[in-house]
Amino acid sequence: MKATVHVTLKPGVLDPQGQTIQRASEAIGFARIADVRQGKFFEVELSDDGDLEAARAELERFARDVLANPVIEDYRVEFLSDLPAASEQE
Amino acid sequence: MKATVHVTLKPGVLDPQGQTIQRASEAIGFARIADVRQGKFFEVELSDDGDLEAARAELERFARDVLANPVIEDYRVEFLSDLPAASEQE
Repeated sequence: MKATVHVTLKPGVLDPQGQTIQRASEAIGFARIADVRQGKFFEVELSDDGDLEAARAELERFARDVLANPVIEDYRVEFLSDLPAASEQE
Repeated sequence: MKATVHVTLKPGVLDPQGQTIQRASEAIGFARIADVRQGKFFEVELSDDGDLEAARAELERFARDVLANPVIEDYRVEFLSDLPAASEQE
């Protein structure tokens, strides 16, 4: 099963890397680029043992505990499949 | 105008950082995480001067020339708005 995780800085947290990209871009002629914030993006492949709810819970825990720093970062988890079996259980 | 840019390694390009995350995760008990590939994610704010086609072209050029390394990376540009005026011109 394929899933994606987006990790972004929380609103209000400074992003010096994004600011540097924005300033450098302006200097080389990208006049419209007003703001840049950099985040991380992960493509995750999960082994499928038939238990979709458990896989979803594990991916959620993986994103929170391993990929993101919840003090300064938000994360968003998405399965690329529709997971119809999981929605039945909700 | 808000837009997002995803930058991911091309298929076949090794991702040692993703492999390390996967191995470490397995070691601490994430049994289902079979593969991880790390990419970058940018939230970009563009100043709106009414010329949506030009903004789209500038963002495309910005992604290709500044954010991504086209030799080893793919990029995907998306505007968060629907841009109805732009689709009229296509």
